[in-house]
Amino acid sequence: MITPRTPSGVLELLPAEQIAFQRMLEVIRAGYERFGFLPIETPAFEISDVLLTKTGGETERQVYFVQSTGSYEKAIAQAGGPGTSTEGQLPELALRFDLTVPLARYVAEHEHQLTFPFRRYQMQRVYRGERAQRGRFREFYQCDVDIIGKDELSVRHDAECPAVIHAIFSDLAIGAFTIQLNNRKLMGGFFEGLGVSDPEAQARVLREVDKLDKRGADHVRTALTGPTLGLSPDAAEQVLEFVAVRSMEHDDAIAILDRLAPPGSDGTALAQGVQELREVLTLVRALGVPESDYRLNLSIARGLDYYTGTVYETTLDDHPDIGSICSGGRYDDLAGHYTKSALPGVGISIGLTRLFWQLREAGLVDVAKSTVQVLVPQVDPDLMDATLELASTLRHAGINTETVLDGGRLGKQLRYADRAGIRFVALLGPQEVQAGNVTIKDLRRGDQFTVPRDDVVRALRVELAQPLVTAPD
Amino acid sequence: MITPRTPSGVLELLPAEQIAFQRMLEVIRAGYERFGFLPIETPAFEISDVLLTKTGGETERQVYFVQSTGSYEKAIAQAGGPGTSTEGQLPELALRFDLTVPLARYVAEHEHQLTFPFRRYQMQRVYRGERAQRGRFREFYQCDVDIIGKDELSVRHDAECPAVIHAIFSDLAIGAFTIQLNNRKLMGGFFEGLGVSDPEAQARVLREVDKLDKRGADHVRTALTGPTLGLSPDAAEQVLEFVAVRSMEHDDAIAILDRLAPPGSDGTALAQGVQELREVLTLVRALGVPESDYRLNLSIARGLDYYTGTVYETTLDDHPDIGSICSGGRYDDLAGHYTKSALPGVGISIGLTRLFWQLREAGLVDVAKSTVQVLVPQVDPDLMDATLELASTLRHAGINTETVLDGGRLGKQLRYADRAGIRFVALLGPQEVQAGNVTIKDLRRGDQFTVPRDDVVRALRVELAQPLVTAPD
Repeated sequence: MITPRTPSGVLELLPAEQIAFQRMLEVIRAGYERFGFLPIETPAFEISDVLLTKTGGETERQVYFVQSTGSYEKAIAQAGGPGTSTEGQLPELALRFDLTVPLARYVAEHEHQLTFPFRRYQMQRVYRGERAQRGRFREFYQCDVDIIGKDELSVRHDAECPAVIHAIFSDLAIGAFTIQLNNRKLMGGFFEGLGVSDPEAQARVLREVDKLDKRGADHVRTALTGPTLGLSPDAAEQVLEFVAVRSMEHDDAIAILDRLAPPGSDGTALAQGVQELREVLTLVRALGVPESDYRLNLSIARGLDYYTGTVYETTLDDHPDIGSICSGGRYDDLAGHYTKSALPGVGISIGLTRLFWQLREAGLVDVAKSTVQVLVPQVDPDLMDATLELASTLRHAGINTETVLDGGRLGKQLRYADRAGIRFVALLGPQEVQAGNVTIKDLRRGDQFTVPRDDVVRALRVELAQPLVTAPD
Repeated sequence: MITPRTPSGVLELLPAEQIAFQRMLEVIRAGYERFGFLPIETPAFEISDVLLTKTGGETERQVYFVQSTGSYEKAIAQAGGPGTSTEGQLPELALRFDLTVPLARYVAEHEHQLTFPFRRYQMQRVYRGERAQRGRFREFYQCDVDIIGKDELSVRHDAECPAVIHAIFSDLAIGAFTIQLNNRKLMGGFFEGLGVSDPEAQARVLREVDKLDKRGADHVRTALTGPTLGLSPDAAEQVLEFVAVRSMEHDDAIAILDRLAPPGSDGTALAQGVQELREVLTLVRALGVPESDYRLNLSIARGLDYYTGTVYETTLDDHPDIGSICSGGRYDDLAGHYTKSALPGVGISIGLTRLFWQLREAGLVDVAKSTVQVLVPQVDPDLMDATLELASTLRHAGINTETVLDGGRLGKQLRYADRAGIRFVALLGPQEVQAGNVTIKDLRRGDQFTVPRDDVVRALRVELAQPLVTAPD
């Protein structure tokens, strides 16, 4: 007998939780599709050489390699042989660690069969050999959306990410949220103005700035003026002022941007960044995102070696501790390792497994509603045929229906339905059959009524369409 | 520069195909949910010891092991050390090769948190180190549905599998199909009557019988009477007669069953199998499956070491060459390696990747319809705000809408929509804005009309709900 157990670092859900998770996946999918994105899926494993082209040491340490029994045995056997070196001998296959590298490979591989701008969404699990730790996952869902241009992609597309994110997080109904925007050119230009023009040094400063929320301004000030970064106290102060800029309203944001790039600054990276952000913010408003739900935040840095323009983060207003639940940005070159074509893009990613886990920890996951809408109990074994016909009628009408086939006391069957989150019971006893009726019980409201057999679909449809309103006492 | 490419044995789809694939997944999911099955998902990798408990040599050779970089290097280094043996040292993790073993592990692990009968569906990819070959996949979707009892599970549940399969394949609309049923007890009892009571010998005979469709009766007859199996010519003839029984109608099937178990055969495995099949066939009819769509077929054997009662296969009437597109059956003990609880169950599986590939090969996959329902082109850059507001209005109404943000000639934008399978265009030019109108073009029907801006959602909803009827010439 082997103890049944899952590997550490995976989130396996019970059905009630899985239903809640599935609902979130469906809301995200529907949101992406509503904005005209097309689905793709890629294999869980890629050829190792192809997957690991793009990434440096840190990610590679986290990659999971995949080997069939035969090739594993062969590698071990070869390693045991005299004078063999294993250096550089990687297994042929590796699990994807994100959806960005597979997207780059996909677009480069199928470049001539795709229409650009290529608008794709992808919702799949990714794999990372993280150290086992609470809230860290080795397998987790990413829900990505990207727009890829060929040679060029108008900055207007940068406004679509906040719009789709706004639609999705509104539909998910997990509380108020704020989409925060910044622009890497603007940041870079600002740093150049301070005399920090080496991108590496900028990156180091930004990494310190990234700790602002966690460690506080004093810590960051000390680090910025310390021996490693060597900013003057005045420059450090300017950095802290800069990243403290957070606008609450659209017009306020535009005013801040105007101050950042005064007349005469034309042609600088700063001015270009300001111009891009201004256009993006304006289109975000035109796309119907309410002003209360997005904001300029010059402290947002994101993936330092990857993003080149607009960057996004999204936070839950009532749960700032959760951190960003959806991030992304604009990049200049998606697939430089795979194709000579310039493929600029912009995209965002929702890490759904981590988000779900956090919502569950915070008690915000509703697991009270089954996918099953109606239970047809077994009142009398002699009525099996009529019972199954009733279930068929309901299913033909598109109503999710479970039948009890094993029997047992009716009270127990009803308690099962209640515990399982099945709201309605369609009951067919001898009396009902005699009279040509069906009794419908609403377990949540705690009442019941009888309808003619021919009317049961219509009656249940009315009930199912009607949200539960608690009656006043 | 690295050539972007996928590993062999995976099916990666272009967006139009992925949309068709996704539709099939959604039809299957909706079907499973309509019959009251609950979703679960399990991790792609399991602990190797847990995964490989149940299976014999053949499957183990096909398992993919998973290792992080560190543990791979360690295994290689250890193998290189003096005097080390690698025997029995498997990597810690392995990719699932089906959904049945993970289900067994899941039910055993969460036994005390589940309600029985446990009705679950699961639609995920599985991994097998198959030899690369056309139509053989190393990664493929399985869409499984199972009902698991604790200690016992009424044979009535065996009727639910054909019912849900019938609903799903009707909705998939890939042509006429037939669900074929048999019973392993019936087969076993029949063989005992011939004097072949050793289960191993029965299995060998059944393996020969399995070749009937491919190799023909003569080949099978020769094999059955050959030195290995050693049946008498008379017994071989009886076997061939037995497996040739295929009923076309329900009453015909019941009559055949009655003949197979004449009065006096009570208590034999044959009689029990006949009784089970009779009950299942009767309930399949009560569940509304038309008699033309299922049939008794005594030649169906399926997984010889696993199934113990009802077995199913499903074939497409117009494509018998494709073989069974959905198979399964009843088993006595799901999780004997993980728990002492007796967990009998019944289930079926759709191998969707292979089915999709076969349908595509046969030209039966419709890739002409995008998930995008409406394109909002860019007629005039000065109207960007009004254009985006129109798109927002449509999206708020739940209409999947793509906007053109990069501009270009209108004719090119319309051709793009047509090629991409987007049927409707909602056009806002200077004239439309002036008059407060929107022009709607139906690219498939090739006509257009103008509606007031406030009426555009209603008008498009009417169009989208209305299937395309080709006008008579």
